[in-house]
Amino acid sequence: MTGRNSDMSDRDINTEEVAQRLHRAGHRIDPVLGELFPPDEKKYLHEPFWHHMEGGGKRLRPALCLLSCEALGGNSERALPFAAAVEILHNMFLVHDDIEDGDTMRRDRPAVWAEYGTGNGINVGDYMLGRAYRAVLNTRADDATRLRLVDYFVDTFELTCEGQAFDLNRRADRSLTVDDYLEMVTRKTGHYLALGMVGGAIIAGAADEAVETFQELGCDLGPAFQIRDDVLDLQEAKGRGGAIGNDIREGKPSILFAHSVNEAESDRADELVEIMAKPREDTTEEDVQRVVDIYNSCGAFEFARQTAEEYTNRGFEAVERIPTEDRQFFRRVVSYMVERSS
Amino acid sequence: MTGRNSDMSDRDINTEEVAQRLHRAGHRIDPVLGELFPPDEKKYLHEPFWHHMEGGGKRLRPALCLLSCEALGGNSERALPFAAAVEILHNMFLVHDDIEDGDTMRRDRPAVWAEYGTGNGINVGDYMLGRAYRAVLNTRADDATRLRLVDYFVDTFELTCEGQAFDLNRRADRSLTVDDYLEMVTRKTGHYLALGMVGGAIIAGAADEAVETFQELGCDLGPAFQIRDDVLDLQEAKGRGGAIGNDIREGKPSILFAHSVNEAESDRADELVEIMAKPREDTTEEDVQRVVDIYNSCGAFEFARQTAEEYTNRGFEAVERIPTEDRQFFRRVVSYMVERSS
Repeated sequence: MTGRNSDMSDRDINTEEVAQRLHRAGHRIDPVLGELFPPDEKKYLHEPFWHHMEGGGKRLRPALCLLSCEALGGNSERALPFAAAVEILHNMFLVHDDIEDGDTMRRDRPAVWAEYGTGNGINVGDYMLGRAYRAVLNTRADDATRLRLVDYFVDTFELTCEGQAFDLNRRADRSLTVDDYLEMVTRKTGHYLALGMVGGAIIAGAADEAVETFQELGCDLGPAFQIRDDVLDLQEAKGRGGAIGNDIREGKPSILFAHSVNEAESDRADELVEIMAKPREDTTEEDVQRVVDIYNSCGAFEFARQTAEEYTNRGFEAVERIPTEDRQFFRRVVSYMVERSS
Repeated sequence: MTGRNSDMSDRDINTEEVAQRLHRAGHRIDPVLGELFPPDEKKYLHEPFWHHMEGGGKRLRPALCLLSCEALGGNSERALPFAAAVEILHNMFLVHDDIEDGDTMRRDRPAVWAEYGTGNGINVGDYMLGRAYRAVLNTRADDATRLRLVDYFVDTFELTCEGQAFDLNRRADRSLTVDDYLEMVTRKTGHYLALGMVGGAIIAGAADEAVETFQELGCDLGPAFQIRDDVLDLQEAKGRGGAIGNDIREGKPSILFAHSVNEAESDRADELVEIMAKPREDTTEEDVQRVVDIYNSCGAFEFARQTAEEYTNRGFEAVERIPTEDRQFFRRVVSYMVERSS
């Protein structure tokens, strides 16, 4: 058996095992979250926070932070506050995104803003960001390391906002290209998927190359993950109250749209943009089905599959450059992530 | 003439002179803002930012940052990025507050969310916060100092969110006390008015006592300033589209309400809470006038004046403890601030 064959068999995984290891690692931050958001204090802020958190969530990003730190020989206890910060950041974005997108449901319960009002939704998200920075500062490391973590956290936060700005302002946009889309999702999802792993590597005292490799891995997996999410939007309701096709209703720049608006014949592209531009409440089931038909006629689903595969393969290549004995686990994580939804 | 008399005459100031000095100092951050938000880049983010900033604003907080740094013998050039961070933070809160309060006008132009939509309003505010942290990190100082600035920035941000949570969730609240109100405004306005001065002092390498004195000064002046703002809400339209009495329409916990709801006879207090609880659009001119009558009958305006004076006097006392030759200027700033609106 060659090494390459061995790699391939690593990908053919027992997803349950990977899921459990990630789950165990991710939930190690729960006591840290409990300390940062004591449920019996500051009820106007902590109650909405726990309302949101108790809806679930996989704790994937903190798990990757802790396991990356360990893989590079670091003490992951020291990475716990940073891992918590990454999870808080992720959830802060969800709280704000739900308002920005007008999504009333999250994880099969009312979104924070739907339960507590828009004002609290915004302010609780802001406060969560404050707590996230507090957690970063709580990292037990020297000043230079802590500053590096803050610096990286700020960069990632800004890139995510930039991706979100693009997402919000290029809805139903006929001039959207696939490259635009890929740049957007790299900003919006790649960097902050990388954040935990990069932080874990920095806390482990890794060399710059290893830090960069984790950065690349995140920027490969983020888009792969998001492309899968775009496709899943037409297959599952994603905990948002039963409807499929939310991205179509919201006119979101998905890979399916970016591909089809460029590949479809002119009149079909017009029709596509017209449906995407409709206000959410005016978009009918027939409209959604019509868009799906256009996507199908343009081979958009196959294009999405191929593109996700390219990113996934780059992810597998990045894994081979992680200076760890535990590459097998990271290969399995890549496989796991692109087979599962967020 | 005794020293005390000399102090008093310092308070009898030419406000134009103070205003000009603050104005000149505050606008020293303009090039820094230009570098942080290049107008020809990232248009989905920078255009709304400049839309907001071009409405005006006194640059009071960055001015106080730079002048505090100089007063303690520091090089205020080194404080420019921090001063910019404080101004960005202040404006980020305004951008989010306008959404939270449903205020469509700010500085006599449409609020960011009213011009660019709620989604962009939230996301632009988030991004501004990212830029603010970037500015803090840009401070030319050693690692320990920069970490201290970040730490203080996070603390202040969180306290402001806590104050805002209180503000949002205790509207038309019959159980509100004056102490509750004062705690809220200290959190919501005091700490972040102090932020610039404290940062300036830290950058100047001041002793802890001096840093604490500036902290106290902010926590004296913030409430004094806010109390004046509460009263002004019934006298001026504050750039929000012509209407007075916005705090009443929004049911906000002002000092006038906090005092009157506790001092008024039971049936009048009921009536007061009832009007404050009405949705903004249902509140009539007569309702506003009725509330003003209740405030008058409870001596609320006199109470507000006295309370503001107490805080102002504490501010004057704090100024006497600033280890600088330039106390006269800070005395004048106190006088200036409590005579002017935000």
